Amino acid sequence: MANIEAIRWVDGNLVLIDQTKIPLSLEYYTCRDYGDVIHAIKEMIVRGAPAIGAAAAYGVATAARDLKCGNEGEYLEKLEKACQEIYDSRPTAVNLMWAVDRQRKAIMSVAARSGGSPTLESDMERELLLEANLILKEDIETNMTMAGHGQEVVGSGYTILTHCNTGALATGGYGTALGVVRKAHESGKNVFVFADETRPRLQGGKLTAWELLQEGIPSKLIVDSTAATLIRDGRIDVVLVGADRITRNGDTANKIGTFMLSSLAKTYNVPFYVVAPTTTIDFDMECGSMIEIEERDKSEMTHMNGIRVLPDEIECFNPAFDVTPNENISGIITEKGILRPPFSESIAAIRR
Amino acid sequence: MANIEAIRWVDGNLVLIDQTKIPLSLEYYTCRDYGDVIHAIKEMIVRGAPAIGAAAAYGVATAARDLKCGNEGEYLEKLEKACQEIYDSRPTAVNLMWAVDRQRKAIMSVAARSGGSPTLESDMERELLLEANLILKEDIETNMTMAGHGQEVVGSGYTILTHCNTGALATGGYGTALGVVRKAHESGKNVFVFADETRPRLQGGKLTAWELLQEGIPSKLIVDSTAATLIRDGRIDVVLVGADRITRNGDTANKIGTFMLSSLAKTYNVPFYVVAPTTTIDFDMECGSMIEIEERDKSEMTHMNGIRVLPDEIECFNPAFDVTPNENISGIITEKGILRPPFSESIAAIRR
Repeated sequence: MANIEAIRWVDGNLVLIDQTKIPLSLEYYTCRDYGDVIHAIKEMIVRGAPAIGAAAAYGVATAARDLKCGNEGEYLEKLEKACQEIYDSRPTAVNLMWAVDRQRKAIMSVAARSGGSPTLESDMERELLLEANLILKEDIETNMTMAGHGQEVVGSGYTILTHCNTGALATGGYGTALGVVRKAHESGKNVFVFADETRPRLQGGKLTAWELLQEGIPSKLIVDSTAATLIRDGRIDVVLVGADRITRNGDTANKIGTFMLSSLAKTYNVPFYVVAPTTTIDFDMECGSMIEIEERDKSEMTHMNGIRVLPDEIECFNPAFDVTPNENISGIITEKGILRPPFSESIAAIRR
Repeated sequence: MANIEAIRWVDGNLVLIDQTKIPLSLEYYTCRDYGDVIHAIKEMIVRGAPAIGAAAAYGVATAARDLKCGNEGEYLEKLEKACQEIYDSRPTAVNLMWAVDRQRKAIMSVAARSGGSPTLESDMERELLLEANLILKEDIETNMTMAGHGQEVVGSGYTILTHCNTGALATGGYGTALGVVRKAHESGKNVFVFADETRPRLQGGKLTAWELLQEGIPSKLIVDSTAATLIRDGRIDVVLVGADRITRNGDTANKIGTFMLSSLAKTYNVPFYVVAPTTTIDFDMECGSMIEIEERDKSEMTHMNGIRVLPDEIECFNPAFDVTPNENISGIITEKGILRPPFSESIAAIRR
């Protein structure tokens, strides 16, 4: 079990580890209202698809905590407005949409049960918090289960390549791809990790390398392009990455650079696994070309920790994600087991 | 002709544009003695293989300017010691070795002519400066000739992908890969450039994007891993990179990340050209596996512009270069024309 608790409900408020401050400083960000939760998601104070999902669920609970109205129709309308604002805070993370939709179901269920009753608002507040707690707890359990399934692809003494952060900071608590690494380490497999620093925001350097250090897992940080030489030279036994969204055919949107790794891994016959809970699968999407890729502000490239590195006149193209085609993926490690190609079949099977 | 003069001999001293200060500030670094030249090479105040070569030649001239001795044997010994120190300042750049060896030949020639004469030291000072001037002038002419040959692979309206800096800052004055781009732009070809930022030192962001801006060439900066998606999606017409060292079979050492691009370009059938003067070819080396890859300090990854971004406990693997195998290279654009595969034959042919 990881000791890092990135998402907690403390004294009636959502409290997040401020991931923009890690690793030089460990600070917490308290969300006083649901607007703070949206701010935290937008500004990447909380990041990683499952962590965003859990935070979003607490965001809805926070809205319900604060919303006092009296008029039932107006109350539900305002709650739905909060849901939609949270839902819209990042375009790519399917867990965000999934978590908000789950809270919407809870809202409907409470409204059906307590509608017309004076306890509606307090029932809602209580139930939405319970649901958020459940989403967080399920996420951690899911991660542990995934990590168990993932052991099949990690041998003793393996060198593992990771991208971005997929650990305790990115999730409810244990990690997706990094959860598999954590479990392998805990099992005494003597794994070694090369962690991509993951430009532009350096989540690999700031978060993954920091987590690996906390856990005592031997590792070295590399610039993203060094991965190519390591893969070619047979120095990587397996590549493990997370996912922001997986479509019905297995195409996977993840942090920019993931596709690069997948293509090189395929060329040089290195196993390439996506580690993600089944909530990351968007059953409404046929294939990766349908995924909208968020383009982020160029200040991510022109600045570092708020300090200007490049002049503003320089134009940038800064997509946050790329899409890895299913043919580059050896398997998708989920809490329901490892999905294998052809993914349109294995994904359809778990849906049933 | 580029307006950027990175290397000049001014009032008896070598004066360099301080490339660690670009693009936020344009400052000059004056080399007061040859130790300053070594410092400039080691600290990347001057960088890019041809620019390092020219600076090294001026470094030998600077040593000769300062060395007053009287005893001929001791004098030549001290001059050779300076040559060797300059020669050893960076391990990978073959132009550095080539330029120092050319000054060594000049030293032997002056020693043979003026040996035993009281004018030996002043003759040496004059001749080594003339030789350095010649090396710089030849480099600029070579770049212009290469840029001309390179037009064959750049069509009108092309989108070009570049890596690192290979422009006026990296060379005597016009550029290798970026010289081809510059010439295409000057010829009215309406080219567009995606420039890799090139971690860890961001030469693409700090130098190439700055040069492109100075020249008014339309461009966008990308993080290195974004190149993969652009290459796959058919948005790149040609990849143009420089070289630090080319072996007899065409294997090419260049800035870390070059191999990554070459592998992706090959997978997705995008032409990949190395642009380098024939002085970059190391005829003593059979193939790329013989090239020693310089591993640089991790502060390049943990710091940005001198400011700490990552804690010191994080271990890093920071190779400065990678090796692109000849089979990934469509052609090598030199001042003697475009070399085509099989490179062991085309390279042997230009040697003759």
